[in-house]
Amino acid sequence: MTSPQSARRIVLAARPHGEPQDSDVRFEEFSLPEPREGQVLLQTLDLSLDPYMRGRMSSAKSYAPPVEIDAPMVGATVSRVLASRDPGFAEGDVVLGYGGWQTHSVESTTHLRKLDADSAVPHTTALGVLGMPGFTAYSGLLTIGRPQPGETVVVAAATGPVGSAVGQIAKIKGARAVGIAGGPDKVAYLRDELGFDAAIDHRADDLAEQLAAATGDGIDVYFENVGGKVFDAVLPRMNTYGRIPVCGLVANYNLTSLPEGPDRSGALMGVILRSSLTVRGFIQTEFAAEQQETFLSEASQWVADGSLKYLEHVVDGFDNTLDAFRDMLAGRSFGKTVVHVAD
Amino acid sequence: MTSPQSARRIVLAARPHGEPQDSDVRFEEFSLPEPREGQVLLQTLDLSLDPYMRGRMSSAKSYAPPVEIDAPMVGATVSRVLASRDPGFAEGDVVLGYGGWQTHSVESTTHLRKLDADSAVPHTTALGVLGMPGFTAYSGLLTIGRPQPGETVVVAAATGPVGSAVGQIAKIKGARAVGIAGGPDKVAYLRDELGFDAAIDHRADDLAEQLAAATGDGIDVYFENVGGKVFDAVLPRMNTYGRIPVCGLVANYNLTSLPEGPDRSGALMGVILRSSLTVRGFIQTEFAAEQQETFLSEASQWVADGSLKYLEHVVDGFDNTLDAFRDMLAGRSFGKTVVHVAD
Repeated sequence: MTSPQSARRIVLAARPHGEPQDSDVRFEEFSLPEPREGQVLLQTLDLSLDPYMRGRMSSAKSYAPPVEIDAPMVGATVSRVLASRDPGFAEGDVVLGYGGWQTHSVESTTHLRKLDADSAVPHTTALGVLGMPGFTAYSGLLTIGRPQPGETVVVAAATGPVGSAVGQIAKIKGARAVGIAGGPDKVAYLRDELGFDAAIDHRADDLAEQLAAATGDGIDVYFENVGGKVFDAVLPRMNTYGRIPVCGLVANYNLTSLPEGPDRSGALMGVILRSSLTVRGFIQTEFAAEQQETFLSEASQWVADGSLKYLEHVVDGFDNTLDAFRDMLAGRSFGKTVVHVAD
Repeated sequence: MTSPQSARRIVLAARPHGEPQDSDVRFEEFSLPEPREGQVLLQTLDLSLDPYMRGRMSSAKSYAPPVEIDAPMVGATVSRVLASRDPGFAEGDVVLGYGGWQTHSVESTTHLRKLDADSAVPHTTALGVLGMPGFTAYSGLLTIGRPQPGETVVVAAATGPVGSAVGQIAKIKGARAVGIAGGPDKVAYLRDELGFDAAIDHRADDLAEQLAAATGDGIDVYFENVGGKVFDAVLPRMNTYGRIPVCGLVANYNLTSLPEGPDRSGALMGVILRSSLTVRGFIQTEFAAEQQETFLSEASQWVADGSLKYLEHVVDGFDNTLDAFRDMLAGRSFGKTVVHVAD
């Protein structure tokens, strides 16, 4: 194969105010550089869309620098090697890379992981249940949440790639899993397909009452990935010595200003104090060096034996990337969002 | 010695709304019951006043039940045995008890600790640096805060019995200690007497700027015992993986309603997320079984060798208990507040 005539990419044109608008990004054609020694030319097959990308669009202080204006958006990809200048990678190899919102990329091979051509599961699982979202669930739940047999674990966005893994791993460890999601189809899926002990629609008017009924012994672990009104319903039900791993606050990402008062930040600290709670923010990279290999081995086994199921929301076509991203942030998608860019 | 003709106590007459008023308590005379088998009759020598007592006046959900209306306020005391029905305790022994806001009490001996008559330090240290406040500092700082050599530890109410021990134990462990307190005399004391690396007056208009100057490498551990505007100044300066043991929020205890908005609780969670912070509420009793003996042995040694200094604010006379309590809550006292009830 030779280099493509032209490649396309989506660059950040402006920092979004609230939900990202069409005008916040720009589609561009660009010419790929030739790969140098130790690099490969990659064609993007599948692009992962994840909530953290909304943070990278913003200039607020965070754990990673923002994407620069006029630079392509970042993101993990499953990509095919078109040309290689590393003897460890051959043309046609499929790899987990970090190609970003681009149809093609040139990447150093140091951070690439070759995907098994004979794998029993699709390569896209490397972007989801066996990738960053799965590892986020695994490391945060087991290292910070530490669910004990019989304890109750609550997770929101529970049909998403992180939430669904949190609930199922909680079950594997002998805990009760209570999932919160938006809409009856998601709720049914949690209960009927994923085996959650209870599932609740966060759109219900009586969310707090339903949560109380589903967590009669209180909540020992709340895996926080959404924030907002779910957190408000969960907090009063946390048991003494409860743990709250915080890996995301997607309900807040598109907020353009602080919500109206009263200011409940002091009250939140009061609950943390009175219930001896542990609230711990984390990014999965913190645990990667120590736990990544164990995770891959354990989670692959769980996927193989059916105890860890996954659901993908595949959007076809690079042109639909921004819409798919907005749908994911708004909870309109169902399962791990992947943009299928090329066969 | 015989039983006193009459004893006096202070009962809770009403649940305070904001700062406790004179009408919220009532002085009463009462007749002591005779001690039964396994009990002693105690005369209160010194009564400890501590911020947690404000919580016990309230009916809000907490880690301990509230004091009932018409019941005497609770509290640790240094007391003298007037009559004993336990062979392990003799008339004249001085003990650490839990006599409450009373001139005399009858207590079961199970929870009493006999104080060494030949101790090099006053018995009142059992209410402060070698008692619950000192152990709060020790267990919370070392178990949750885990300061490493060269790290920066910030503590407010830093001349109080908890804060002063936090800063000094941080120093003993090789960390930098930055103290926050109210007024120039307290600030000077932290710097000149207790050896804090920096001390800041929280009444200063430029609190945030002074804190920034004193914590050039950011803050690794913030020992939270006050809340309010000190917390607001500290939070943006927390380093990645910073730890916040939360043992008190005295700035909030007299609040009668939530502060005006905007609601910053979501923003607080955002900082916890982006900086991978650990925020952990605790009550020292959680660690008592495992650490109390080690604490007593280590802290006694530190007091003896001068590396752990303490300051007491002794108020003379049982009648002044409520005033002393209000002064402590408002930060008008300087050092560990003790009411001297009898010689």
